Amino acid sequence: MYLNVLSQCTPVPLFDGMWRDPGDRSATGYRSLDYWTWLAGRLEAACVDALFLADIHGVFDVYRNSWRPAVRHGVQVPVVDPMLVVAALAATTRRLGLAVTYSTSYHAPYQCARLFSSLDHLTEGRIGWNIVISDTRLGVRAGLCEYLPHDDRYARADEYVELVRRMWEESWSDGAVVRDAERDVFTDDALVRAVRHQGSYFHMDTPHSCEPSPQRTPVLYQAGASARGMAFAARHAEVVFVTLAGPKTGAEQVERLRGLAVAAGREPDDLRILHGTPFIVAESAAAARVKADAYQELTSTEGQLAKWCQWSRVDLDSYPQDADAFEVIGADGGSITAFLSQLDGERSWTVADVRRLVATPKRPHRYDRHMLFGTPAQIADRMEEWIERTGIDGFNLFPCPPTGGIDDLCDLLIPELADRGLVRRAYDPAERTLRERYFGAGRARLRFDPAATALRPA
Amino acid sequence: MYLNVLSQCTPVPLFDGMWRDPGDRSATGYRSLDYWTWLAGRLEAACVDALFLADIHGVFDVYRNSWRPAVRHGVQVPVVDPMLVVAALAATTRRLGLAVTYSTSYHAPYQCARLFSSLDHLTEGRIGWNIVISDTRLGVRAGLCEYLPHDDRYARADEYVELVRRMWEESWSDGAVVRDAERDVFTDDALVRAVRHQGSYFHMDTPHSCEPSPQRTPVLYQAGASARGMAFAARHAEVVFVTLAGPKTGAEQVERLRGLAVAAGREPDDLRILHGTPFIVAESAAAARVKADAYQELTSTEGQLAKWCQWSRVDLDSYPQDADAFEVIGADGGSITAFLSQLDGERSWTVADVRRLVATPKRPHRYDRHMLFGTPAQIADRMEEWIERTGIDGFNLFPCPPTGGIDDLCDLLIPELADRGLVRRAYDPAERTLRERYFGAGRARLRFDPAATALRPA
Repeated sequence: MYLNVLSQCTPVPLFDGMWRDPGDRSATGYRSLDYWTWLAGRLEAACVDALFLADIHGVFDVYRNSWRPAVRHGVQVPVVDPMLVVAALAATTRRLGLAVTYSTSYHAPYQCARLFSSLDHLTEGRIGWNIVISDTRLGVRAGLCEYLPHDDRYARADEYVELVRRMWEESWSDGAVVRDAERDVFTDDALVRAVRHQGSYFHMDTPHSCEPSPQRTPVLYQAGASARGMAFAARHAEVVFVTLAGPKTGAEQVERLRGLAVAAGREPDDLRILHGTPFIVAESAAAARVKADAYQELTSTEGQLAKWCQWSRVDLDSYPQDADAFEVIGADGGSITAFLSQLDGERSWTVADVRRLVATPKRPHRYDRHMLFGTPAQIADRMEEWIERTGIDGFNLFPCPPTGGIDDLCDLLIPELADRGLVRRAYDPAERTLRERYFGAGRARLRFDPAATALRPA
Repeated sequence: MYLNVLSQCTPVPLFDGMWRDPGDRSATGYRSLDYWTWLAGRLEAACVDALFLADIHGVFDVYRNSWRPAVRHGVQVPVVDPMLVVAALAATTRRLGLAVTYSTSYHAPYQCARLFSSLDHLTEGRIGWNIVISDTRLGVRAGLCEYLPHDDRYARADEYVELVRRMWEESWSDGAVVRDAERDVFTDDALVRAVRHQGSYFHMDTPHSCEPSPQRTPVLYQAGASARGMAFAARHAEVVFVTLAGPKTGAEQVERLRGLAVAAGREPDDLRILHGTPFIVAESAAAARVKADAYQELTSTEGQLAKWCQWSRVDLDSYPQDADAFEVIGADGGSITAFLSQLDGERSWTVADVRRLVATPKRPHRYDRHMLFGTPAQIADRMEEWIERTGIDGFNLFPCPPTGGIDDLCDLLIPELADRGLVRRAYDPAERTLRERYFGAGRARLRFDPAATALRPA
């Protein structure tokens, strides 16, 4: 079973209001290396596979058509840049995998390729790239990009990923760097080639600036829920984040993803599929309920609305409250139909109903029977059940609250999983790189690369 | 006397071929955190003010109209990204200043502002930004930017720097982040404002994504030799890198720079001016000569040509070798007239003469009588003379070779300077930030900001 832990370099990675937990240190720690060193050190001591740092650019501004609610409640703002935190953690950890979000929408492919090659060198092969395709409306306000409609964003991202993979895989042959002092040859330039590309969105005519790193291409992570997103993940990703509604529909989603990978010419287990989920664990079920109740009290109502409206691209404040929620069309084609169908597609929902639902603090132990909630043994049972019934390969865990959740995970849950033989008690020294941790010793490099192959110059 | 040390995350920061020195570790160390941790640790133990990491994007390709010579001789390629190395060094050092090159030509202002705010948080106020304006022809080939003529690049950079300074200085008031758990207010949004900008090159309408860091604006470094470059430095820079030909003309250049700063509304000592220079130090003058001779032998002839032609933008290989060098016009208006005038403006030079001069390995102790060369006492004498005669504030030192030069500096030169009371033996705990190290305790923030003031919304 693979375990990733999600965090983000912002006071409240996911659970709005949780920075108010008296024991939480994320409100100041998110910008402090002492905090990140502590957090990564705990995960490494517990032999977690990878820490994954999410990221956003710009400030959420759909709700009330204003960035003020997000700023007021610390909803993914302020931030620090996670690439820099990962670089620092390269110095303070030795084995922990480090995966980080980097958007294809905001930065040149050259820069992406250079940064991840650099990180792969500095971490000695422990780096993963979570490929995201961003909401360009935020990027436009930040001066980071031009506006693009949804489908064009995916077409552009396809070209982007193919281009950076060529930089990593094709520009420098193994053995190009000879460091031959006698002949004054640092690199045998006959083994280096320029990446020549004239595409719809990008152009390039230069060699990659970095020598091959241990993994060359970072482990490619992706989360995509839409049809286009799943196709993208099946084509490019090695580790896929999914959020499954329940074991039954989850099994179908996992099967569909592996099917898409096979259709793209890959093996079904070339994808490691991780279910993303919060967890609340305590030594007794009663203590877990107390914890959940406390968290519920801390939830920021307006913070939840700011985040939910951003994600759905529907400003619940701007419609008549008695309007039919199924009819609401948000910015950039945003809609809440899919969200409502997940809940109860049969009943009717007004905007006010949805707003009430979103703003009401969740009671995890009642709201979601599939959630990882309870004692370590209860949660371990549920995790085993998830894996058996859906065919996922592991979990992407959301600590709640950000600081205490790390302690709970390392002190309570992981020892139980290790006792059951579900997770490692020590990193395998034969698996030197992050890719080998997912796919076995000796497989430090990308196995199959249909996209890059297709682009190879004749 | 201020001491900066220059390096670059590439096998040969400056002296092409020096990676061949038997004791040098830069050829593999440039991409290893162990190497950078060692190097920064030595400088910190010696109480150097700051490590400064230079950077380039793309691969040099003027000489022979090809990137192959640069690749072959390791001339600033391969690289790793210095922002990431600085982030890692934030975790392994506590007091050393960390300055890094970041180009205004390749990345969005939003990204620049976010990265340096992040680094300033993570280093707790030890970060400096060396503002560079890049040769966009390399950037075009790398798909990083559009081509811009020289003067437009400066106009664009002016707008860029003014915009990022507004993000740092104006978007979040001190005290905006309240972390008031009881009221569920993380940030008082009344104390945050969007940066609204519609300029010739950039647009923005969003608050900065980061809360104020210890210095807000990183210490602004700049090196500019052209008239436009000096005007830019006088307007924006706090620490200016100069390369002075000798004490006499150097004094004029320093005076001119301070005069330009005053004309821009600043105090003469709002600029700290550092003379950039290599040094070769040994315990005896004879040993220094042996060292210099060895370095001369290691110099890469073709590597020097690749670098020189890039900097001058004149491909010495593409002209008739008997052509008058004063008449040669290179790419993008490149010319070698200024270079020749520095040497001997009276005599005539053919392209072949220049080529011979550039390709011939330098013998520092004969070639340049102003160079820092000899015993620690001899060099210290010369440094004192430089300061007295030119009015510079200190030095930006180029270790040669990259690894051994660090040892020489820390083992030989700095102890001599400390014995004379010219440099500190311990960091002053009252100077918490890098800016305070240059300008005194209590001055962690920018003192004067005419550019940002001019842009402030009415």
